[in-house]
Amino acid sequence: MSQTLAILNCAQLVTLAGPTRPRTGEELRELSLIHDGALLIRDAKIVRVGTRQEVEPQLPSDCDVVDAGGRIVLPGFVDAHTHPVFGGQRADEFELRAAGATYQQIAAAGGGIKSTVRKTRAASEDELVATGKRYADWFLRGGTTTVEAKSGYGLTTEDELKLLRAIRRLHHETPLRYVPTFLGAHTIPNEYKINRAAYVELLITEMLPRVTREKLAEFCDVFCEAGAFSVEETRQILSAAKALGLKLRVHADQLSLSGGTALAAELGAVTADHLEQAGEAEIASLRSANVQPVLLPCSVLLIGATRYPDARAMIEAGLAVVLATDFNPGSSPTPSMLLAMTLACTQMKMTPAEALTAATINAAFSLGLGGEIGSLEPGKRADIVIHDCADWRELAYFAGVAHPWQVYTNGKLAWTRETKGPLQSRESSAASQVNHLR
Amino acid sequence: MSQTLAILNCAQLVTLAGPTRPRTGEELRELSLIHDGALLIRDAKIVRVGTRQEVEPQLPSDCDVVDAGGRIVLPGFVDAHTHPVFGGQRADEFELRAAGATYQQIAAAGGGIKSTVRKTRAASEDELVATGKRYADWFLRGGTTTVEAKSGYGLTTEDELKLLRAIRRLHHETPLRYVPTFLGAHTIPNEYKINRAAYVELLITEMLPRVTREKLAEFCDVFCEAGAFSVEETRQILSAAKALGLKLRVHADQLSLSGGTALAAELGAVTADHLEQAGEAEIASLRSANVQPVLLPCSVLLIGATRYPDARAMIEAGLAVVLATDFNPGSSPTPSMLLAMTLACTQMKMTPAEALTAATINAAFSLGLGGEIGSLEPGKRADIVIHDCADWRELAYFAGVAHPWQVYTNGKLAWTRETKGPLQSRESSAASQVNHLR
Repeated sequence: MSQTLAILNCAQLVTLAGPTRPRTGEELRELSLIHDGALLIRDAKIVRVGTRQEVEPQLPSDCDVVDAGGRIVLPGFVDAHTHPVFGGQRADEFELRAAGATYQQIAAAGGGIKSTVRKTRAASEDELVATGKRYADWFLRGGTTTVEAKSGYGLTTEDELKLLRAIRRLHHETPLRYVPTFLGAHTIPNEYKINRAAYVELLITEMLPRVTREKLAEFCDVFCEAGAFSVEETRQILSAAKALGLKLRVHADQLSLSGGTALAAELGAVTADHLEQAGEAEIASLRSANVQPVLLPCSVLLIGATRYPDARAMIEAGLAVVLATDFNPGSSPTPSMLLAMTLACTQMKMTPAEALTAATINAAFSLGLGGEIGSLEPGKRADIVIHDCADWRELAYFAGVAHPWQVYTNGKLAWTRETKGPLQSRESSAASQVNHLR
Repeated sequence: MSQTLAILNCAQLVTLAGPTRPRTGEELRELSLIHDGALLIRDAKIVRVGTRQEVEPQLPSDCDVVDAGGRIVLPGFVDAHTHPVFGGQRADEFELRAAGATYQQIAAAGGGIKSTVRKTRAASEDELVATGKRYADWFLRGGTTTVEAKSGYGLTTEDELKLLRAIRRLHHETPLRYVPTFLGAHTIPNEYKINRAAYVELLITEMLPRVTREKLAEFCDVFCEAGAFSVEETRQILSAAKALGLKLRVHADQLSLSGGTALAAELGAVTADHLEQAGEAEIASLRSANVQPVLLPCSVLLIGATRYPDARAMIEAGLAVVLATDFNPGSSPTPSMLLAMTLACTQMKMTPAEALTAATINAAFSLGLGGEIGSLEPGKRADIVIHDCADWRELAYFAGVAHPWQVYTNGKLAWTRETKGPLQSRESSAASQVNHLR
């Protein structure tokens, strides 16, 4: 028998319904908001979206009902750029940096990404899954229901496969959806420092074929930056990945104008990520090739930098901007899409609506999932978050607050703040209505 | 019969035990951390602090036991600068500012602090208490157990008293401790724009005597800034407050070098708050008068400014720095001391230990409560937070994460993330131990 679930009494149902393509320009501000909204869910999918008046009379008699209590209801956040599986953490380096140490000093002392690579190699797949579950819980409690998940801390064939298998297990063993990206080209490992070409060769002839044969990744990403991979190396790696059927993402123009953005356009990458240094020419090349920019303001803040990507110029140029956390143990140890939205509004002058579109439906399109997630529309997966606010603009405005109240993925309750079960029979729902403002 | 409660299995018990005075210089980095620590609480007070080996053999047989599950345990945060009671919110203005509107344009359209004053005057005491409880919940869930709470959105005698009474009720009706501050001199209300002197007169001859007669405030604060109150007006108001027995705080040198810092030193204020523009001379004057600087980095971030107060110069000068949120509906809509700590470390180059000292024991001293709260020592109030981390440095490092797992004020459970009751009989505690890293 099919299971149906209704969510009623949504003060604002922010659907983000609209065209089945990434949103640009004025569309970024159109949230398709329904007041006093309601949703009907059957077998993990949304089947009906409307006002309570429209939806409630059509509920089947055996329907479970969640009373949202006058709260706001949104699609789960889609975090399109994360590094969520790694050994150890780097709180010690955070302390050193706060005390004035530079990245260069930390790297010279064996720290930085090298230390995470060391700890990741030393960790078993089980251990990576165990710590990965802690972070999965953080994503879910923060209202995120899908993450793009990169490898990149193994840097040997077996360790990269271990990371991608851990990501696959996390996808199956947690309520969070993971979209895997192979980032073997995250940095040149120590043992290849004197022979970079051999590592590029290893990536192309061994790692990529293994990754695609085992269907462990949908995307391939390269960190194109002075100190990581040159434009020419990046071109070789991504071209090989493309030939194997992987879609492309590129870490581009973060710390310097590396040429990564132009390369992303040249190769038809789906996204170019970071873009702190990107200017008019880079933006034009993204536009010409329909590459989506993925903006990562948390990583700017948390490394103590001040130059944010020029979101306004990108929006004005007609780019379908995406917002993500860049969750990783070094430059951006935060899983919070709410923090990313607050920074988007206060540091990059995106409006709250633009930030929300960039954090949901546009992010979904950047993962090839624009038809499945990222908005609340009939036929889409029921990845839904009830936030404990009466106005959706409070999400970015009231910063540092854990707004989510209940999180659903595939129509099932994945996390709830409440101590009692959220599912009620229809009869009792009115009586137990929660007044969220007390 | 006295009730005793033990908290066992604390991977790190961060006590902040030390001298009974505000901490300066190297002391700011001394956290008095106990590995595998334990606490014994009786009648709202801490009676024993030590290693598990030291404390456990002495537990009375009827003692309730909380198993911290290898988590970290800290004193509750003390937020020494908040504006936690107001009518309405200003998410609409947040949206306008993100879209490029300036403060001046918003103020000219009737927005800014004026709109909060309008909504606060229109709200009943009951309404202010109801919305105040929502924010109290946020503070507690964020690990804050004491807030300094300013009036300042009423700006008539009755409305200022209404705010202070609402604060008193919140203190009694929630588990959060409120320390009330009279801030009738927050801005000149519209009706006195053409006669500023009359408003200063009203503050001195009517509001302050009423506030002190009804014992509604412990501190008096003035917003000393171009556009708010001049140094001379501030001197008149604070001198009158001092004569009535109130202790003093000053909003100083936030947007311009207003002279507020020097005045704080001259009048022997307990704190000078903001200080974004304060330089060497201002720091020297604070030093000479033992005034504690209260730094508010969230308000810098959230208005999109880039100039943070010079925390390093203040620490090097020997000042007993304090960190606070400045929670308010305009410039700093965040109740998160964790966010304040992250910003302190990444934007002001305070070390995590300095930030933690500034957020707890130093903040407590700035409220005259250094002997009662702010550290975990025998005789102090049992305001205790169990955070879901294994290393205290994760608090500021893993940003945008709701770390608190359980919050106690006066020895009673004020908030818990767990769905089941936290109190267990001693016998069952080992069996039900939570492995927080899953």
